[in-house]
Amino acid sequence: MNRAQRRIAEGILFTDMYQLTMAQMFYKQGIHEKTVQFDHFYRANPDYGKHEAGFCINAGLEWLLDWMKDARFREKDIQYLRKHKTRQSGKLLFDEDFLQYLLEYGNYDNISLRAIPEGRVVHPNVPLTTVQGPFAMAQILESPLLNFLNYQTLIATKAARIHVAGKERPLLEFGMRRAQGLGSLAGTRAALIGGADYSSNTGISYALGNPPRGTHAHCMVQAFMALGHDELDAFRAYADVYPDDCLLLVDTIDTLESGIPNAIKVFEELRRKGHEPVGIRLDSGDLAFLAIQSAKMLNKAGFENTVIVLSNALDELVIWQIVTQIREEASQNGVDADSLINRLAFGVGTGLITSEGASALDGVYKLVAIEKNGELFPAMKISGAKEKILNPGHKKIWRIYDVRGKATADLIAMHDEDLRNRDQITLLHPIEHSKKRTLLRNEISELEELHIDILKDGKLVYELPTLEEIRKTRMKDIDRLDPGVKRFVNPHFYHVSLSKKLWDTKEQLVEKLKA
Amino acid sequence: MNRAQRRIAEGILFTDMYQLTMAQMFYKQGIHEKTVQFDHFYRANPDYGKHEAGFCINAGLEWLLDWMKDARFREKDIQYLRKHKTRQSGKLLFDEDFLQYLLEYGNYDNISLRAIPEGRVVHPNVPLTTVQGPFAMAQILESPLLNFLNYQTLIATKAARIHVAGKERPLLEFGMRRAQGLGSLAGTRAALIGGADYSSNTGISYALGNPPRGTHAHCMVQAFMALGHDELDAFRAYADVYPDDCLLLVDTIDTLESGIPNAIKVFEELRRKGHEPVGIRLDSGDLAFLAIQSAKMLNKAGFENTVIVLSNALDELVIWQIVTQIREEASQNGVDADSLINRLAFGVGTGLITSEGASALDGVYKLVAIEKNGELFPAMKISGAKEKILNPGHKKIWRIYDVRGKATADLIAMHDEDLRNRDQITLLHPIEHSKKRTLLRNEISELEELHIDILKDGKLVYELPTLEEIRKTRMKDIDRLDPGVKRFVNPHFYHVSLSKKLWDTKEQLVEKLKA
Repeated sequence: MNRAQRRIAEGILFTDMYQLTMAQMFYKQGIHEKTVQFDHFYRANPDYGKHEAGFCINAGLEWLLDWMKDARFREKDIQYLRKHKTRQSGKLLFDEDFLQYLLEYGNYDNISLRAIPEGRVVHPNVPLTTVQGPFAMAQILESPLLNFLNYQTLIATKAARIHVAGKERPLLEFGMRRAQGLGSLAGTRAALIGGADYSSNTGISYALGNPPRGTHAHCMVQAFMALGHDELDAFRAYADVYPDDCLLLVDTIDTLESGIPNAIKVFEELRRKGHEPVGIRLDSGDLAFLAIQSAKMLNKAGFENTVIVLSNALDELVIWQIVTQIREEASQNGVDADSLINRLAFGVGTGLITSEGASALDGVYKLVAIEKNGELFPAMKISGAKEKILNPGHKKIWRIYDVRGKATADLIAMHDEDLRNRDQITLLHPIEHSKKRTLLRNEISELEELHIDILKDGKLVYELPTLEEIRKTRMKDIDRLDPGVKRFVNPHFYHVSLSKKLWDTKEQLVEKLKA
Repeated sequence: MNRAQRRIAEGILFTDMYQLTMAQMFYKQGIHEKTVQFDHFYRANPDYGKHEAGFCINAGLEWLLDWMKDARFREKDIQYLRKHKTRQSGKLLFDEDFLQYLLEYGNYDNISLRAIPEGRVVHPNVPLTTVQGPFAMAQILESPLLNFLNYQTLIATKAARIHVAGKERPLLEFGMRRAQGLGSLAGTRAALIGGADYSSNTGISYALGNPPRGTHAHCMVQAFMALGHDELDAFRAYADVYPDDCLLLVDTIDTLESGIPNAIKVFEELRRKGHEPVGIRLDSGDLAFLAIQSAKMLNKAGFENTVIVLSNALDELVIWQIVTQIREEASQNGVDADSLINRLAFGVGTGLITSEGASALDGVYKLVAIEKNGELFPAMKISGAKEKILNPGHKKIWRIYDVRGKATADLIAMHDEDLRNRDQITLLHPIEHSKKRTLLRNEISELEELHIDILKDGKLVYELPTLEEIRKTRMKDIDRLDPGVKRFVNPHFYHVSLSKKLWDTKEQLVEKLKA
């Protein structure tokens, strides 16, 4: 693919074809400039099979905005559409009047967007992003919006879980070799938002201002052996170049028989020369057992502070199990469990960057309002499945914190409701009418509106936070989650409720549609 | 991320950091320009949990070559490395002499590459790509090479399975909304290589010269309803704009009660005006049942030739089940099963673009030879796990076809062996010495060498095939697979064997390393 082709592939035509055929149909019907609202939300937290998420971490917005800014129909794009013949009839698919319209108005300059900021904890069915704008362009935006937001949210969520499982010890993302091509750049960013402290992916780490990390692979030792040397020679050579940053991979031959003893030799030599070694990495075998044994050997040799990096097919469940096992077994081996856990770091590749077990987030983008007689009128799709019935209209999202300061529910209300004035708040179950919960004012420590104005008529009205700020947002939000919601298996179900007014609006609309 | 940041992220620094720290260490040791060989291969066919692959489809090479051509250390890249301070010591990580070396020689102009072409059926442990070149740069190439090749091979494989399951009926890839950001471009290309006939992803489809496809979504009908119209109005309006390409999504309200009857009305109106309708799409419910019932209604109305597109969380297993169910149940409903299957088409999103169930291919890149006294000398890593012991040295790959013309085994031999002259060929099991198989010359219809010279000292010596040619290669190769290998569940195990000479080389090396 040459540069010109790539520009086409990554520009405004980075969307699904049916958005364009629908847009032309709206144009021909004269409804293409009606103001509409689409809500973006996801329906269920990722289910990884053996374990499942109790929340997600929102991510991807900045990159979506970057893309929207530049995306517009240019002559090159139009040329492709102009030549598009349908297979069935061989006739041209797009009419010239529609193409001229796209050339003139085919951009996101009239889109308004409200969203929950990146790094925030989010929950199913809560609109994360709402888009208002002319029907045709808001429709064409569906596919790229979902592409940019679904994947980063998926990976930020996975990273948060892994980080929590690893007792918030340093987490290195190193999955680029198993990622979806250049999608790994988005993956690295999302991992850093969600919980990774650094990434091995060099260029994107620099671009994001979060310098990459990495030491060496087995092949370094192997090359030395092929040249007639041994593991100790390889370690020495490495320590020679990186005396102050010496972290050695000790499992190329045999961790306990060869790797650790050789590492200790080199560490002692370093110390004699006035340098402190950084640590070791274990990349195979029973990692809990090897971590304990390695710690024991390193402690005995006087290297109690060296880091022990664990890697090899890790995910949150494996890390949780390793940490649990260390707690149970370390002391029997004369190693203090807490000290050992406090010197661990984790490297995670495939499991993180591909969100193994749940390789996609089911984020959707649904029409919830359309202009009628100059006003935004709630729209919905009724469905056989009750849980798939949309929450129609223009809405506001509130997060309610209990007296402990923990988030206790998200409430979806109509946009003109202000919960702050009320003595009590009634939370209605989104589907079952009989289920409700009432919170008195004194049971609530804080009421927070989650949506922020991001774009107004295409103009950025939001100061984009830095990666570091987004990470802090995430830490704060995870801290305000009830521990039950953070469980790796069978997490508590976090309440996402409707206000009475939204419930009534929805009911009326369903009745009307059925009639 | 602005353009300058993106250039950094997608350039030569699109690699793992440890490649650079190792490269500097090789430089300091004076071994950075030794010629080495790395083999790229994968260890196991994708296992999707409930089903597993018996083969893979090779893909990704052209995009890797495109990337390598432009990737080189430029002043901007060096600036980042120059400022890189290590966290532990706060000292600069890279020395100026090494950085100057990268600035001058840090490119892929001295890399030679042999590979199995894209679109070919491939098997575990067979080197798909071999790289020869100076140690430092061949090392730095590891991460991008794996990134470009692993994902496309994974997706081409999934697409091939889905295409086979769907009886090679038209397959539309439409997963961009669930893909890894811009990684979806690579995913679309791989899907088209492996089995998809077209994609909904507009820009990349044009860029690849394979025009996109797509019709309309539920939201079109829903918008009409919100504006006071109904499904029939929406269908009519659509047919009005696309009279010769009218494919209607019939499940927004109720497929059999509303969607199909309304579609038939519109189809009749179209026919009266001299147009032939294209067909319908079913996107929810029991697809086998609904396909049969829809066919029955369409047939009765005289639309026997309209296409029935099925979509909604499909993968190869679901499609296989739908096709099987139609075969069993169609005739009981007065519908001819074969005719129905022959009018089906499939749309697959998430399951294809994320390779659901097996979200990564375990492709690796291993040092197998290193220059010693001016000659390439086999290198290997011994490992506790016997199946992880490498096949060392410079090798040739042969595919052996039996008298039926079906591929019966791949043989990994040393590069200087020519199998064509032999009366019989002995195939040794890669691990168990006692297992072997001997083929006489008259049992063999063809002996094919799989590797092609692609790059010689950085120069392309290979005429890149078009997407259409790659697709033809895939079709031919799948046709030459034994049906057992193509099974969705419990596929036959395809033999990948070693020549006697390779086996002996490996044995000697293991003995030497152990000593």
